[in-house]
Amino acid sequence: MTQLYGKQYLMTAGPTPLPPAVSQVMAEPILYHRAPAFVEVYARVLERLKMVFQTRNEVLTFAASGSGAMESAVANLIAPGDVAVVASAGKFGQRWAELCDAYGADTVHLETEWGEKVDPAEVDRALADRGGQAKALFTTQSETSTGVLNDVRALAEVAASHGAISVFDAVSGLGVIDLPTDEWGVDVVVSGSQKALMCPPGLAFAAVSDRALAVAADARARGARNYYFDWERTLKGQRKDPPDSPFTPAVTLIRALDVALRLIEEETLQGVFERHTVLGRAAREAVKAMGLELFGPEDEQANVVTVARTPDGIDGAALPKTMRDKFGITIAGGQGHLKGKIVRIAHCGYYGAFDVLTSIAGLEMALDELGHDVTFGAGTAAAQEVFARAGIRAAQPVG
Amino acid sequence: MTQLYGKQYLMTAGPTPLPPAVSQVMAEPILYHRAPAFVEVYARVLERLKMVFQTRNEVLTFAASGSGAMESAVANLIAPGDVAVVASAGKFGQRWAELCDAYGADTVHLETEWGEKVDPAEVDRALADRGGQAKALFTTQSETSTGVLNDVRALAEVAASHGAISVFDAVSGLGVIDLPTDEWGVDVVVSGSQKALMCPPGLAFAAVSDRALAVAADARARGARNYYFDWERTLKGQRKDPPDSPFTPAVTLIRALDVALRLIEEETLQGVFERHTVLGRAAREAVKAMGLELFGPEDEQANVVTVARTPDGIDGAALPKTMRDKFGITIAGGQGHLKGKIVRIAHCGYYGAFDVLTSIAGLEMALDELGHDVTFGAGTAAAQEVFARAGIRAAQPVG
Repeated sequence: MTQLYGKQYLMTAGPTPLPPAVSQVMAEPILYHRAPAFVEVYARVLERLKMVFQTRNEVLTFAASGSGAMESAVANLIAPGDVAVVASAGKFGQRWAELCDAYGADTVHLETEWGEKVDPAEVDRALADRGGQAKALFTTQSETSTGVLNDVRALAEVAASHGAISVFDAVSGLGVIDLPTDEWGVDVVVSGSQKALMCPPGLAFAAVSDRALAVAADARARGARNYYFDWERTLKGQRKDPPDSPFTPAVTLIRALDVALRLIEEETLQGVFERHTVLGRAAREAVKAMGLELFGPEDEQANVVTVARTPDGIDGAALPKTMRDKFGITIAGGQGHLKGKIVRIAHCGYYGAFDVLTSIAGLEMALDELGHDVTFGAGTAAAQEVFARAGIRAAQPVG
Repeated sequence: MTQLYGKQYLMTAGPTPLPPAVSQVMAEPILYHRAPAFVEVYARVLERLKMVFQTRNEVLTFAASGSGAMESAVANLIAPGDVAVVASAGKFGQRWAELCDAYGADTVHLETEWGEKVDPAEVDRALADRGGQAKALFTTQSETSTGVLNDVRALAEVAASHGAISVFDAVSGLGVIDLPTDEWGVDVVVSGSQKALMCPPGLAFAAVSDRALAVAADARARGARNYYFDWERTLKGQRKDPPDSPFTPAVTLIRALDVALRLIEEETLQGVFERHTVLGRAAREAVKAMGLELFGPEDEQANVVTVARTPDGIDGAALPKTMRDKFGITIAGGQGHLKGKIVRIAHCGYYGAFDVLTSIAGLEMALDELGHDVTFGAGTAAAQEVFARAGIRAAQPVG
C-alpha cells in the first residue's frame, strides 16, 4: 500500500485550527500580567470582545473551559431552591440541567429530541406554568452535538415576557451566526475561545446585562455561593482603568485572542457571518449530493457544523476513524446516544472553502473504503458549485 | 541620555520566564483533544505531575488559574456550616479565608503577621478548641506575598492529629522546595502552571488523597455544591484508560507543560531543589551585602522569592518602576499593606545564576538612581561568591 504523506487536517468544531499568526504570538516571550505591555493587550481584548458579542456590557473573561462560563451563569443567578427552566436539545443543553441540579435549583428541564429545535411556545408554557417564578431560562444557541440552531430571538423574548433572565450557550455559534445581544434583549451570552474565536481552549466568556447583574446580587443575598466565577469580582476588575483581573489571567491565551479578534475585526463581523453562510451551504449541498441524509431540519442558518447520518450498513465509529487513520483528517462523530450514528463536518472559525472540500473528499474516500457505494466527486462538485456561484475570493491572505 | 537597548528581563514570581522549548511547542499546530496524538501527551503529563507532586494519587488538572484549584479544595471539602481552620500569613493565605466564607464555612481564621511563619502550636490549639470538629486546615506552603515558607510537615501532622484534612497552597513553592506529599501524609496540595512549573498561567492542579476524597463525598451528601471544579468528575475522567477530561482541556498549555515537566525530569527533582537553594542563598547574601534588610526571618529554605525591605527614604513604588522603565527588568513590589514597603526578587522556575545577578545589579542601579547610597557591585559580588563556591556549572544547556 502506498503510504500517504502524514499531513494532518484538523476539521473539528473545537479545538478548531488556529491562524498561523495566532499560533506564533504564543511563542513570544511571556508578559507579566501587571506590566503595561500586557495591560494594553488586555484592555484591547476586552473592547474587541464587546464587538464580537455585539454588546455594550462588559464581557467577563475567565481562565477556564467554556463550561466554566456556563457554571458562572448558574452559580451567580441561582440561589438554592430557585426555579430554573432549562430547554435542551442535545449534549450541551443537558449540561445546563446538570449545572442547575448541582447548584440546588428547582430545575424544570424541557428536553427536546436531539436533532430538533427547541420550541419557543413550549418554553413559554413551561414559564407560564411556574407563574413568573423562574429566575432564568438556560438554553443553547448552536447545539454542537447535533448541529441544530435555536431561535435565540424568540427564546429571549419568551423569557423576558415572564421576567426570567435569558442565558444562551453560544460556545460554538458566537462569531458564526449573527447574535445581536443588546438589540435582541438577550441577558447573558456565554462562549469559549476554542471555536469560532480561533484560539486554543482555556478562555471562557460571559456577556452579562445589568438586569442579570441585579438578579445575581439578589441571589447572592439569598445564599448563592461562588468565588472564582463570581461575576461581581471579575466585573470590578475589568471596570478599573486600566482593567485588571482578580486572578492571574492566562496571558498567553489572551495574546492569542488579541490577534484572533484583530483578524475578525479586519474581516468584519458581517463578513465572518457571510463566509460561514457559504461554508455551511456548501457542506449541506455536498452531503445531499453524496446521497447522505442531513441530520435534523435543513436550516440555512446552521453554519457551525454540518451533520450527516451515517448510511445504513456502515460502522459509524469506523467512519471518523478511517478518515483520521487513513487520510489524516480529524472530524468528529456523534456524542452520547448519537455515537456511531452521525458524522459532524465542522466549519466554524479559521475555515475556508478548500477545508470543506477536504472534509467532503475525505468522507467520500472513507465511505468507499468501508464498502459504501460512492461516486467520487459528487459531494465535492456540489460544494464547488456553491463556492463558485457565491463568488468567493481571497481578498487578502488571512492568518 | 543614552538609550539602553529595550531588552526585557522578566524576574517575577509568576508568570515566570518560559524555557524556549516550552514557548515553541505552543506555536505548533493545535491538536484535537480526543486525537491519539494529544491523549498520549495528556497521559504522560498526568504521570509526570505525580513525580513533581511526589504522590501516587491522581493530580487533578483544571483549565483555570491556581486560585481555581484552591476553590476546588474548599468547594469539595466544605459543606455549609462546616468548621474550617485557615492559617494565613499573607495575601494568598487570606484567599483561603475568603473562599471558606464564600462557601458558607464556619471559618476559624488564624492570622499570622505578614512576614512571619504560621506557628503549628497555635494551629494545634485552634483545632483542639473546636474539639475535632474542623473538617480541614487550609494554609500555605510558600507565601508569595512575603517570601515566607511554612513548616508543611508539622502543620500536616497537627491537622492529622485532630482528624482534619490538611490542604496546602503550593502554587509558588511546588518544584522549588521539597514537599514529599505522600511521605509527610499531606492530604491536598494545590498548585498552578505559571511558577516553578515554567508554563504560562491557565492550568491548576490539586493532588488529593483518598482520605480527602472520602471527606469530599461526605460533604457532597451534606450539600456541598460544585460542578466545574468537582474532584469526583475530574478523577473519573483521569482514571479512564486512556485518561479523559470532563471539559475540553487547555490543549496548548498541556503540551507546554509536557515539555516543562520533561525538563524537570531531566534535571531531576532533587537537582531542581538544589538549584533553587543556591539561587535563594545567593539572593539573600546579595541583599544583605547591599545593606538592605531581609523581610521576615532568614530561612535557608525560602527559595521562591527573596524579599527585601525598601530602605528608608526611598519611594517603594518607584523602585520596581525604575527597574522596569529604566532598565527593562520587571520585579514585583509589595501587595496589600506591604505595597511600597518591599521588593521581591523571584527565582522560582526557569532561573539561573545570571538572572539573580541581573536582578541584583538592576536593584543597585535603581537604588542609585533614586538617590540611595549604593556601592555598585557589593550585592553582585556576594551573589557571585555564593555561585562560585557552590560549584555551579551548566552541565548541559536547558530549555
